[in-house]
Amino acid sequence: MSNARPEIPIEMTAMRLHSYGGPDVFQADTVAVPKYGPKDVLVRVRRLAVSGWDARVRQGRAPQLPGRRPIALPVQPGREMAGEVVAAGEKVLTLEVGDRVILTSAPSCGECDFCYRGKGNLCTRVDYPGHAAPGTYAQYVAFPENWLLKTPQSLSDEEAVSIPWSFGNALHAVIEGEVELGSTVAVTAASSAIGIACMQLAKLRGAKTVIALSRSPQKADRLLKVGADHVVNYTASGGVDRIKAIAGAPPFGGVDVVLDIYGGQEMMNLAVAITGFQARIVMVAWQGEAWDGTVAIPGLIVLGKEAKIVTSRGSLYGEQKLVVDLAGAGKIRMPVQEVFELKDMASAHKLLDSGKHVGKILVRT
Amino acid sequence: MSNARPEIPIEMTAMRLHSYGGPDVFQADTVAVPKYGPKDVLVRVRRLAVSGWDARVRQGRAPQLPGRRPIALPVQPGREMAGEVVAAGEKVLTLEVGDRVILTSAPSCGECDFCYRGKGNLCTRVDYPGHAAPGTYAQYVAFPENWLLKTPQSLSDEEAVSIPWSFGNALHAVIEGEVELGSTVAVTAASSAIGIACMQLAKLRGAKTVIALSRSPQKADRLLKVGADHVVNYTASGGVDRIKAIAGAPPFGGVDVVLDIYGGQEMMNLAVAITGFQARIVMVAWQGEAWDGTVAIPGLIVLGKEAKIVTSRGSLYGEQKLVVDLAGAGKIRMPVQEVFELKDMASAHKLLDSGKHVGKILVRT
Amino acid sequence: MSNARPEIPIEMTAMRLHSYGGPDVFQADTVAVPKYGPKDVLVRVRRLAVSGWDARVRQGRAPQLPGRRPIALPVQPGREMAGEVVAAGEKVLTLEVGDRVILTSAPSCGECDFCYRGKGNLCTRVDYPGHAAPGTYAQYVAFPENWLLKTPQSLSDEEAVSIPWSFGNALHAVIEGEVELGSTVAVTAASSAIGIACMQLAKLRGAKTVIALSRSPQKADRLLKVGADHVVNYTASGGVDRIKAIAGAPPFGGVDVVLDIYGGQEMMNLAVAITGFQARIVMVAWQGEAWDGTVAIPGLIVLGKEAKIVTSRGSLYGEQKLVVDLAGAGKIRMPVQEVFELKDMASAHKLLDSGKHVGKILVRT
Amino acid sequence: MSNARPEIPIEMTAMRLHSYGGPDVFQADTVAVPKYGPKDVLVRVRRLAVSGWDARVRQGRAPQLPGRRPIALPVQPGREMAGEVVAAGEKVLTLEVGDRVILTSAPSCGECDFCYRGKGNLCTRVDYPGHAAPGTYAQYVAFPENWLLKTPQSLSDEEAVSIPWSFGNALHAVIEGEVELGSTVAVTAASSAIGIACMQLAKLRGAKTVIALSRSPQKADRLLKVGADHVVNYTASGGVDRIKAIAGAPPFGGVDVVLDIYGGQEMMNLAVAITGFQARIVMVAWQGEAWDGTVAIPGLIVLGKEAKIVTSRGSLYGEQKLVVDLAGAGKIRMPVQEVFELKDMASAHKLLDSGKHVGKILVRT
Repeated sequence: MSNARPEIPIEMTAMRLHSYGGPDVFQADTVAVPKYGPKDVLVRVRRLAVSGWDARVRQGRAPQLPGRRPIALPVQPGREMAGEVVAAGEKVLTLEVGDRVILTSAPSCGECDFCYRGKGNLCTRVDYPGHAAPGTYAQYVAFPENWLLKTPQSLSDEEAVSIPWSFGNALHAVIEGEVELGSTVAVTAASSAIGIACMQLAKLRGAKTVIALSRSPQKADRLLKVGADHVVNYTASGGVDRIKAIAGAPPFGGVDVVLDIYGGQEMMNLAVAITGFQARIVMVAWQGEAWDGTVAIPGLIVLGKEAKIVTSRGSLYGEQKLVVDLAGAGKIRMPVQEVFELKDMASAHKLLDSGKHVGKILVRT
Repeated sequence: MSNARPEIPIEMTAMRLHSYGGPDVFQADTVAVPKYGPKDVLVRVRRLAVSGWDARVRQGRAPQLPGRRPIALPVQPGREMAGEVVAAGEKVLTLEVGDRVILTSAPSCGECDFCYRGKGNLCTRVDYPGHAAPGTYAQYVAFPENWLLKTPQSLSDEEAVSIPWSFGNALHAVIEGEVELGSTVAVTAASSAIGIACMQLAKLRGAKTVIALSRSPQKADRLLKVGADHVVNYTASGGVDRIKAIAGAPPFGGVDVVLDIYGGQEMMNLAVAITGFQARIVMVAWQGEAWDGTVAIPGLIVLGKEAKIVTSRGSLYGEQKLVVDLAGAGKIRMPVQEVFELKDMASAHKLLDSGKHVGKILVRT
Repeated sequence: MSNARPEIPIEMTAMRLHSYGGPDVFQADTVAVPKYGPKDVLVRVRRLAVSGWDARVRQGRAPQLPGRRPIALPVQPGREMAGEVVAAGEKVLTLEVGDRVILTSAPSCGECDFCYRGKGNLCTRVDYPGHAAPGTYAQYVAFPENWLLKTPQSLSDEEAVSIPWSFGNALHAVIEGEVELGSTVAVTAASSAIGIACMQLAKLRGAKTVIALSRSPQKADRLLKVGADHVVNYTASGGVDRIKAIAGAPPFGGVDVVLDIYGGQEMMNLAVAITGFQARIVMVAWQGEAWDGTVAIPGLIVLGKEAKIVTSRGSLYGEQKLVVDLAGAGKIRMPVQEVFELKDMASAHKLLDSGKHVGKILVRT
Repeated sequence: MSNARPEIPIEMTAMRLHSYGGPDVFQADTVAVPKYGPKDVLVRVRRLAVSGWDARVRQGRAPQLPGRRPIALPVQPGREMAGEVVAAGEKVLTLEVGDRVILTSAPSCGECDFCYRGKGNLCTRVDYPGHAAPGTYAQYVAFPENWLLKTPQSLSDEEAVSIPWSFGNALHAVIEGEVELGSTVAVTAASSAIGIACMQLAKLRGAKTVIALSRSPQKADRLLKVGADHVVNYTASGGVDRIKAIAGAPPFGGVDVVLDIYGGQEMMNLAVAITGFQARIVMVAWQGEAWDGTVAIPGLIVLGKEAKIVTSRGSLYGEQKLVVDLAGAGKIRMPVQEVFELKDMASAHKLLDSGKHVGKILVRT
């Protein structure tokens, strides 16, 4: 087998940002198909996914995490992609032309101190695609082979594309939150892809009860279908009481683990109110009003319950590999709200901004 | 052997509170020597210790933790005691008259759901001595045999009395904070008994560097003698920089574990500023201005470092047993600042309130 | 509510052993209804379960575990029971007459060193029912309230009776074996109650694949219904190859956890042959030829794979409480092979000895 | 700074095996100084260490671990080395000419599935130096930069050379064996470098008592100096009783962790005899009579104590980095028995074979 397809073009379309703003700022640029090094593969993108993170990149509001190079215009966003290997560098060991692959969401160098200690989620030696390096909003992408996972045969590109990021991050959160057999778990931003993934993985690890916290009553039916045992509109009058009726009254009863995919003071207040002895509140994301700010914690209440506030940043390679394996075995599944064409990225981001979706918004290239 | 000493009197002196206030509110009351049940022992108190907790009880400011009965006047404070068994109920199995014993600091019923799951620190079925039940500020006390540990032969009552509470709580904190071989650890309120205990146990678990955080430069020499590798006056100009010089600059360097024995916003700000990737900030106590209030946490900074804020409440029986064993083996030692007479409780509390002590203030009875 | 039913008789029927031997050695004795102490309850037994352990007691072959008093004739066997509280001692706090209850399988004193450290499965201060104390093969039993769990409303006595022992021990084994999300697990003696419980709990904790190992091909369909993903007759030609086809070839592939409910050399050889890197082989039981003997382990093979051989003895109170909760929520279920009358204990034990059953054999009283 | 020293010769001396056998089979070969790739550094070896492993390589008796390429003559043994970087490939990021470095003992590719999951000790993609790749018995070696750690300034080459392997493997064993604050630990082959490292690290993690097991009474004084609290000649009459006198009688007392650096049936029998409830027996090495064979374990005794038999293979990069850091901080130290010249390798191996040494035998180049 040759290590490159004959038909690879020289140029391709990429959706890029030359300024920050609303969904309409994307431009369809014609750019060179990326070069690939000896340990890289070139991939023809079949499906990519858009995310709230991408929306923040679009708005110029992506947070500057410690150790990362800043994002600079023009930006080619995108951290998720499923496609097919069309060329492989001469030192590539595990992939070949024709292999179907998905991009991992937390690429790491494999060589730095974090990587060598199995903490690749904290690796800051590489530029993340869609941040300081070109992302997946394009027809072709080139990445080191180790940043890619083989797509399980049982999954279409559409089913596979959003597994590593959504379920990988969710698995990391579920592990950091010590979701156990018998746990009662509440998930904020439950209709987000990571929220849905958290609910499914919490159940798969044996959670007894999973409560979806949502402010959109019209999503309740869909949330029950994708993993929730109960859906509670926490902003409605009596919302907290409904949670207590399900989980028991704190501190002797109550939720064991809150997976907070949303962040901010309102979620923290809710989490503290509904959790019992030795609960874990997991900060998975951070957004909204308190973007640069702080969240206030009632110290004595948290200490009196011997509760914890833990954080979950990204995910590990092994976690992403495991969730892809579980998806291939049919144990988890991410709902797709709608699929757009690459050139119609503005529409994809409009739907994203609307918050009306449950699960992922995809793009075909 | 008879199971009661012949010389037990009918009445004894107890130092009690009939109102809340300053050190002078203690009254030397003559009260009945306590009765003991079939599983209890009666103990002649030889040494008791006073603590910041007792001071709060004295001020009527002890926090109302979930599940505990409220404290009501008159109060006989005191949670620490070393003495000698002078009588044993007929069903007592492990102790006999003449045994030297120390009181555990987290007595538990052994029968409730928490106890049966090995979480005796959260047991709320029993009234704690010195809270809703009579404490150790007396010549005699009666407790279930399971609330007492045998005093190691190698320890005097003075050396033994403060081991269970100080070192037990410190061990719980050190475990919750995952102090590991090679960790860099900072301890606030370092000259408190629990602070000193945290420093010694962190070292014993293999911490590479232990930094005592103190606002009293005059205590530095004494802190270096009881466990600190470095003493930093964090309120002085350049204090944070000195910590970074020792521990490395966050997030790649920095302190791994902050054991916060003090609590409040100033300590949290300091802890966030000096900790690195995957650090643990352990809230062991909560006091000062923010007693009923909240502490603000910079969410994105904590999340970006994938740090945790954990809490440590009391200690487990097994932890207290282990520290008594380690003290008996000479591995840990609590410095004693001064020993007062029982009737001179006011002086003991005056020294306590002054904050000039390093280690424990004791009382002989 | 009165704390004793009026209709309690003075005498009752108990099935007892006056000699060791085959199923016919049981005698229906008329004995006094047991007395109950101030912290005990008296229970009218509605269903009891027989087990392989009971069969060994019957044969005089029960192992003498460290710290336990020896069994002596006459013996009233039985460690499982569901019934109704008919009288409660005056110090009983959590149960009252009319409550439906199930016996825990690992009663503990709550007062010894093991119990206080949350290791009640190792408590040796109490005499186990069915060993040195009268068991559940009777119409009435009296136990401390802490040895009993409330029967969930959603469960009949028949559904509840075998939950604590079978699923409690299985949960302990699954935890000791670190069955995780995505694990491949093999279970020996898969048609035993503990085997079935292991399969269901492994799945509930997220095992990707559960392989039932059985030498009885005729049980395959039933095993697939109660938790197995695959059933392999390991004694058949090609049995090991079939396991490898499912789990991958060791050491890179292979089974992650073997839960060995049977014990002995043949199972150990099988376990070593099918397990991969960092596998856990869990010895849950020990029987057959090697009862007093040893099992040979190929050291370099186990070390080369960095595998572990762990053991699982009994279960903890918290584990039993959790499985009763999970059963009440409909997440786990133990199949019942047949229900006999108390006086027909010989028939129950004959079926037990035949090994033809899948799940539990029960007795109504 | 240039990235290569000017004075690098073309040829060098290497001690190699052209046949297997006794200490005299080494030949001083003149071979080419190794080439280095873009991510490699060339190192002038200053000190190397010889080990029991090297002796087995010399004898043609090195075990064939799963996934490793076989060793083939001629062999250049050696897995330990301290030296100075004399040239660096153009893609080297963290090292430069003049840096003092030590070789890690468990080099890993950083790219395979094990490495990406933080399990570099199981990486089988690379050929280990001294096995299927040239080892450190030479004047120059070339390795990827990630296989090297910087030598702490406070350590001479002689002090540093044996830290990664001995203490790295010991740390892995101490972690796998869950040596905790307060543990009682026994170490076999206590005078070996890994044995000494185990004793020091067990103490550093808070072990209460460390018992060196040795059959050479004349080594007792030296063992007490390098980490043992007690030295017991287990082959002497009353040896087991002496251990029980120190550790308490099993199962309620007894040793908590046996770190078996020797392997085989005699050690396993000893370990089972001296360990108590929930003990861990750690197989770190495997040798002697039972090289290809099995070790017999008394199943019911191990199960009755709920003990574990775990294994420890090699060590992780992070573990080696930590021990180098601890050595630099003066917390651990490996005694050196004697230092030989490179050409006098036969003498070094004769001393090694004699078993008379305590700690490491080194070679200067």
